[in-house]
Parts: sequence; C-alpha cells; structure tokens
Amino acid sequence: MFFLTPVLVAVICILVVWIFKNADGSIERRKGETRARAESRPWVDEDLKDNTDLHQGEEDADDWQESEEDVEHIPFSHTRYPEKEMVKRSQEFYELLNKRRSVRFISDEQVPMEVIDNVIKTAGTAPSGAHTEPWTFVVVKDLDVKHKIREIIEEEEEINYLKRMGRQWVTDLRKLRTNWIKEYLDTAPVLILIFKQVHGLAANGKRKVHYYNEISVSIACGILLAALQITKVCLEEGPFISFIIL
Amino acid sequence: MFFLTPVLVAVICILVVWIFKNADGSIERRKGETRARAESRPWVDEDLKDNTDLHQGEEDADDWQESEEDVEHIPFSHTRYPEKEMVKRSQEFYELLNKRRSVRFISDEQVPMEVIDNVIKTAGTAPSGAHTEPWTFVVVKDLDVKHKIREIIEEEEEINYLKRMGRQWVTDLRKLRTNWIKEYLDTAPVLILIFKQVHGLAANGKRKVHYYNEISVSIACGILLAALQITKVCLEEGPFISFIIL
Repeated sequence: MFFLTPVLVAVICILVVWIFKNADGSIERRKGETRARAESRPWVDEDLKDNTDLHQGEEDADDWQESEEDVEHIPFSHTRYPEKEMVKRSQEFYELLNKRRSVRFISDEQVPMEVIDNVIKTAGTAPSGAHTEPWTFVVVKDLDVKHKIREIIEEEEEINYLKRMGRQWVTDLRKLRTNWIKEYLDTAPVLILIFKQVHGLAANGKRKVHYYNEISVSIACGILLAALQITKVCLEEGPFISFIIL
Repeated sequence: MFFLTPVLVAVICILVVWIFKNADGSIERRKGETRARAESRPWVDEDLKDNTDLHQGEEDADDWQESEEDVEHIPFSHTRYPEKEMVKRSQEFYELLNKRRSVRFISDEQVPMEVIDNVIKTAGTAPSGAHTEPWTFVVVKDLDVKHKIREIIEEEEEINYLKRMGRQWVTDLRKLRTNWIKEYLDTAPVLILIFKQVHGLAANGKRKVHYYNEISVSIACGILLAALQITKVCLEEGPFISFIIL
C-alpha cells in the first residue's frame, strides 16, 4: 500500500471552511439574538447543531422569495431490478469499493478533465439540509498554486503532529506510517478542494442559512469517493485536513 | 417526486449519537485536563474539532498496544481504464446517481437481506480519521421497533418544526412540502440506523479516541447512498435527524 504504484491521478479532498469576509461580526450578533429562543428547548444533539443556529430573526422570514419559487416538476421514475440482479450489483459495487485505498504515492499521469467534471457533478447529487447544497468544489491544476496549497497544509499538519493533536493521536497514526510531508500534492496533476459553505447569499444579498452544512458536504465527499473509484481514478483523500480562507 | 411511486424499499439513514452509559462524567473530566494544552495552539477550524479533544492524557499513550499491532500487508493493485472508458464510466455513474431522489412515499415490498448486507459493507469501506471506523449500522425489520422509532423521530421533528429550528427553517422547507409526519417509517420493510461512535473501547477497556467521527460517518453515509442507488434500491434518507440513545 505504501510503495510506488501506477496510480493515475491524485485528487485531494480537503474540507475547508468557506468564510465570507466581514461576516464574522454579524454571525456573532445573530447568535446573540437567537440565543433566548434556542435555550427554550435544547438540541437533542448539541454536536449536530452545526451552525444552524445562524438562522435569521423570525421577522425576516417573509423576505425570502426563493423559498416560494416555482420549481419545475420532474416526475420520479424508477425501474426495479430483479432480486438476483440487485444482489449481483450490490456485491460487485462492494467488491469494487473495497479495493479503494488511501495512498501516499501518486502518479503524475494526466486524467481527462471530463472525468473530473463528471465526478464533481456526481458529488453534487448528494442530499443536503433543506436542499441548500452547501458545497464549493475547486479544481487546481496550476503547479504554483498546488505548491502553495502543499505548503499551507504541511505547515498545519506539522503542528498537528507536534502539538495540536496530542501524543495519543500520533501514537494512533503510527501504524499508518504517515507524517506531515505531502509531496504528492505537487505530484498529483489535479487537486480537488472541497469547501463547505457555512452560509450562502440569496439574490437580495441576504444571508441564506445552510443547515447541517458539514454533514451535507461530508456526504457529498463520500459520493465523490465512490465516483472516483467507479472511474478507477485513484486518489489520496484527505478529508480531515482543514484551513480557513479569509 | 411526491406522489406514490413504485419504490421498492425504504432505507432510513439516521445519524445518531452513540453515547455510552455513564461516560459523560469522564468526558467532561478529560476535556478539562486537555484544555490547557489545546489553548497553546488553537484549532484552525474550531468547527472541525469534532470531539477529538477527548484524547487521553499523554501519560496514557504507552498503554496502547493496538497502535503497534501487526496488520497483514495487502499489496495495492490497480488497473487503469483507457481514457475513453474512464470518461464513459464517470458519465454513466453521474447519470445514475443524478436520478436519486429523497422521497416520502415508500413501498412495503421486501428487499433481499443480502443486498442490505452488501450496501452496509460498502459503506464500511469509507475512509475515517486514523482509520477508526467510528460507525455502527443497525438494521431494523421488527414492526414494533420500527413504530417506536417513528414515534421518537416524529416527536423530535415536531419540535423542530414548531420551535427548535425557527421560522426561517420552516420557510426554507416549505417548497419541499415536508412535515413531521413520517408514516413511511412504518411502511418501509427495512430501516438502517446509523450511529456515530464518539469514542470506542480498546481491548483493555480503555477509551479509544475516534477522530473526526462525524465527518467520517457522513462520508460513509454518502457511500451508502451510492451503493443503494447502484442497486436501485430506492430510499428515503434522513441523515439530518438525530436522537440520543442513553
């Protein structure tokens, strides 16, 4: 798993926080406004709350034209496979996905952009909280930009190993023989950066709440991984690294 | 999308917090112990921290035998498709997954358990923080248990609609024409409950940290959705509902 393999391309999934400039102040303000209401009934799972307490004051609700928009009705069509075929397909898909590995040695061979487009479009079919689709996919091919990304990630990852995550984490990772050097970020011909949008912007410039944005983006990442494996484009996924773009 | 369709089976993905009994006290204690160290270098993204501050004190690190376990080496094999084939496969997978819908009307037709087993095994191939695989999949077929689950979810969801999430959320959902009544939880022959494990237990009874457990489980959910769609087992996914099992 850790020797040089004929891997075709590396696609790096980096979960990044999408923070709009100058938005922090208003977030804090909104939190204050809604706190009283939130306290009246606690969340079942605080951990799942995931920034959705950023909803606007109730007085703003009527301003949202988009919520009432007419969307074209697309009839749902479904054909069922015979049971034998269902079992066969589920078995084959399992066997294919079970071959996926997180590798650290990446080939520099090019991959058609059409494939990259398709796997990202596939990821975009993921379900999301209130269908807000809170993700941004950024494809990077430029050598200099890739290298800058590598530098940022290595700097943060070194801090992870040396102090941020603690010795237990380093111990737990030892059997994986990883470290903070990520040469493959230069080698890979394509990087896919995945940004989660903690909120969007409506047509009228107002803040649009993205419910459960982190869970939604992570589900999209899972579908992206499946699409890459179907295509047999190998990859290094690093969904557990994050940095902030200000 | 919202009329009665010949959907074969419903599989409900419910992201649930797996909380071990009597564990809360020690979690709080550990948080206190590690706070001083954590403050020395803030997390890049607080939101991604995701309970991984629960790592044990550094003095415990040497107790972890599992981290040093010998695991069998499985050579990584990879065959590359010709470019045309890659494009074709990525296109077909996109078209198939783009047909997935979140539906509210579910058929009661049975589905082979082998298919359910395969899609769950497929979800289990997902990557996870430090390869901790912090998920538990529970398959429910018993009518009474399904109904009890429905009652719990409806009770919580009603609170979501009436007060917890606020009027903005209700407004944003209006175009989806959903509500808190989830009859399909009775109708569906199979429910898959997905628990995230905020920590595990090592062989020696010690707490095992599950890094980025929520992101990891959500990625597994994405792969589960892809597997279900490949199999053309239709589903209602509700990954945004949670409740606590104590």
